[in-house]
Amino acid sequence: MSELEKVLAEVLEKIVPPPEEEERVAEEVGRALDALGKALEELSIEAVAEVEGSFAKGTWLSGDVDVDVFLLFDPSVGVEEMRGKSLSAAKRAAEKLGVGWTERYASHPYLTLKLSSCDMDVVPAYRVSDPSRIKSPVDRTPFHTQYVKRRLGERPELKNEVRLLKRFAKGVGIYGAEIRVEGFSGYLLELLAIHCGSFLGVLRAAASWRPYGVVIDIEKHYSDRRQVLERFEDPLVVVDPVDPRRNVASPVSLENLSKFVAAARAFLREPSTRFFFPVAPKPRRLEEVLRGRAVAAVKLQVPPMPEDVLWGQARRALKALSSGLERLSFKILGSSAWAEGSELVLLFELETLELPPLEKHRGPPVYSKHDERFVSQYLKGECIAGPYVDGDKWVVIRPRRLRKTSEALAKLLRTYNVGEHITKCAREGFVICTGEEVLGISASESFRRHLYEWLIRRPPWLWNDDAEAWEKQSEGSA
Amino acid sequence: MSELEKVLAEVLEKIVPPPEEEERVAEEVGRALDALGKALEELSIEAVAEVEGSFAKGTWLSGDVDVDVFLLFDPSVGVEEMRGKSLSAAKRAAEKLGVGWTERYASHPYLTLKLSSCDMDVVPAYRVSDPSRIKSPVDRTPFHTQYVKRRLGERPELKNEVRLLKRFAKGVGIYGAEIRVEGFSGYLLELLAIHCGSFLGVLRAAASWRPYGVVIDIEKHYSDRRQVLERFEDPLVVVDPVDPRRNVASPVSLENLSKFVAAARAFLREPSTRFFFPVAPKPRRLEEVLRGRAVAAVKLQVPPMPEDVLWGQARRALKALSSGLERLSFKILGSSAWAEGSELVLLFELETLELPPLEKHRGPPVYSKHDERFVSQYLKGECIAGPYVDGDKWVVIRPRRLRKTSEALAKLLRTYNVGEHITKCAREGFVICTGEEVLGISASESFRRHLYEWLIRRPPWLWNDDAEAWEKQSEGSA
Repeated sequence: MSELEKVLAEVLEKIVPPPEEEERVAEEVGRALDALGKALEELSIEAVAEVEGSFAKGTWLSGDVDVDVFLLFDPSVGVEEMRGKSLSAAKRAAEKLGVGWTERYASHPYLTLKLSSCDMDVVPAYRVSDPSRIKSPVDRTPFHTQYVKRRLGERPELKNEVRLLKRFAKGVGIYGAEIRVEGFSGYLLELLAIHCGSFLGVLRAAASWRPYGVVIDIEKHYSDRRQVLERFEDPLVVVDPVDPRRNVASPVSLENLSKFVAAARAFLREPSTRFFFPVAPKPRRLEEVLRGRAVAAVKLQVPPMPEDVLWGQARRALKALSSGLERLSFKILGSSAWAEGSELVLLFELETLELPPLEKHRGPPVYSKHDERFVSQYLKGECIAGPYVDGDKWVVIRPRRLRKTSEALAKLLRTYNVGEHITKCAREGFVICTGEEVLGISASESFRRHLYEWLIRRPPWLWNDDAEAWEKQSEGSA
Repeated sequence: MSELEKVLAEVLEKIVPPPEEEERVAEEVGRALDALGKALEELSIEAVAEVEGSFAKGTWLSGDVDVDVFLLFDPSVGVEEMRGKSLSAAKRAAEKLGVGWTERYASHPYLTLKLSSCDMDVVPAYRVSDPSRIKSPVDRTPFHTQYVKRRLGERPELKNEVRLLKRFAKGVGIYGAEIRVEGFSGYLLELLAIHCGSFLGVLRAAASWRPYGVVIDIEKHYSDRRQVLERFEDPLVVVDPVDPRRNVASPVSLENLSKFVAAARAFLREPSTRFFFPVAPKPRRLEEVLRGRAVAAVKLQVPPMPEDVLWGQARRALKALSSGLERLSFKILGSSAWAEGSELVLLFELETLELPPLEKHRGPPVYSKHDERFVSQYLKGECIAGPYVDGDKWVVIRPRRLRKTSEALAKLLRTYNVGEHITKCAREGFVICTGEEVLGISASESFRRHLYEWLIRRPPWLWNDDAEAWEKQSEGSA
């Protein structure tokens, strides 16, 4: 048995659900479906309950199952009517089962029932005749389930290949199409496994992918690659087998595609279970890791909103503040966001927290009609050298107005548009910390873990690599 | 009398040579020409002595006359023969006149005779039938003299307009086509006055010049502007009336053209004798002006070489070292060179003398075959964060290797090509000073003056403007 085979066998042992787990979940899902069916009948709701997602396809990971049940309505039913009926039916079913539930929101509001072995989302959607007639993205899901079930039915051994791929993507930290992650959805990974024929087939293909040039069109909807690349300007393009207008990989960011490529190459060179189950980094004190780094943090109080909205806003704010800081001459080494409850923390690492005292400030060209105003302003005002002619422009060297990162961030938050929601939150107040103070900006343990992983900034499969040497080096630099 | 007329009258009084000065110089030049004629005869040299330059054209400034005498040879004479004969004749003439001389070099070696009222350069050149047949640039000069004499002969009142323009260019610090200056030659200013009809005509035209779009073609050698701009890619183009292949303004740098434009606009707004005769800046202690500025200086010992060669090399070194420093992440606010005797000092003003301790270092793309080497190098080596994937590349945050300007300059001087001569000098040794130490890098008074003017970095006509307020401000920042 090769090292590679040993690694894959060890991982499969952990991720393939044993028969008793499968039976237990199946039984519970069966009971819940019965309850749902009765609820629909009692409430005279014309809808069909259908299991979708990884449980339906048989690609879920042991100990990690979420069951999606769709209530499929006729397209003639109004949206509000469908939403109301779906929530009523789900609540009635929860009552019958005697389980708790929470209400959530994606395309529509939906209920999550807390079954004993798993969570079950009860989601409303329209049953349409063809994916080109969908009314909202969820309506496409039944077609995805159907397609994958058919393909995996032809080659059942692919199910475990999908499981390996999902666990690999989780281990590398790129699993999930939500905006917080910008990674690979389960459906995308299923398609990759179907296309490449195996887990290793996908990794071997990925090892030579170059972003913005990768096209996978399983059902050959397009006649050639170029046609696809003209239509979709994404780092990775996987044409949806059930809907040629859609790139299943459109949520995948350049960085996450690159992380997948990097991990695939590293795994093929040296297979290890670390890629699937990262070993936690050898703990170093957060204070020590932060020392010598020029980090600034902004904390905002955010109202409740759907996660995708929050993370869309958080990313937009990171981008706007970074470009604002750069316009003020700060150099950004990295940025990241963390959120929990009503707390949102935006993190920035800079080259320095305080810029040099003087700056070169460019004025108008010498032949501009604004020349006189510029020259006389600086002859009278604050100016260390000049006004002088540099190239064809008037220029001065003057004291820099905003030298400290904290002052610059505060100014940007007060005056900049950093996205609709966050701008509104910022107008109501914010906290800015820099240097070692950043540690105190949130008491949450999850914040400390996020800060730590962001500071060491290694892919999880490298977390424990050469930790000894690394620790020694960090002591030296402390 | 308007303010403008008063200013011009006051300047003309100082720069138009009084009749007695004109007579005295003319008499002495006459005597020198006689001596030269006799020398040529005695040595059986077939050449004609002819007066060129501003004295011949009657455009010299009072108290500031250099007389150029050309010894014109037949093109059939060999260069070495011409050079030898010219030097012999000039030396023989100096003997006859009982005056001292020094030997210099431009296109050819030449002698400067120290007459009592002026210096007289005795320069060899070929008398060619047409400017298109010249053998070296000096051969064009007699054609220039002839052209300007003819045009000024038609309108003698232009002579004083030329004088105003020359004094203005001197006052603004842009007079001279040599590489040290990169400014306006006397011939160029004469052509501008001829073309625009007066000193004020030139200034009014210049006030709306936009660099890289100005074309003056007095003799209409070209059919339109576009044709000229296609041929000459210079900030200012003045087609030589005697040679359409040549742009008389080609030595003028973008910056000096812009200084001229800026000064013209300012003078027209508020005429003052300061533009012609700048008032020395209110003295402030050099130490005080230097305080708070991030200045670095390199001193090199240079062997004797023609001035244009030295300044060409100095400019090249400034450019190479500046771009080297920028590649190492330093921000350059300005640079300048100073030379005297065998000392050459290169000056740099930076945003800071010491860069932040950490830097972001970009490695290969994740799909590159060099990925493994990069990652394993930084897993083992000096690295603060990462290796991590940023965009599609591997990246680390590592301690910056060269943080101090002095270390960076030393490394560049040891390893960089900063121009043939200077590189050679640098290999034999150099001195680097930063901060207040820069004051001690040369004991020369001329160096201190240069440093001072470079630090305050104002056009001479603004030197004394608002000096009070400026001084107050500098005390505040000290």
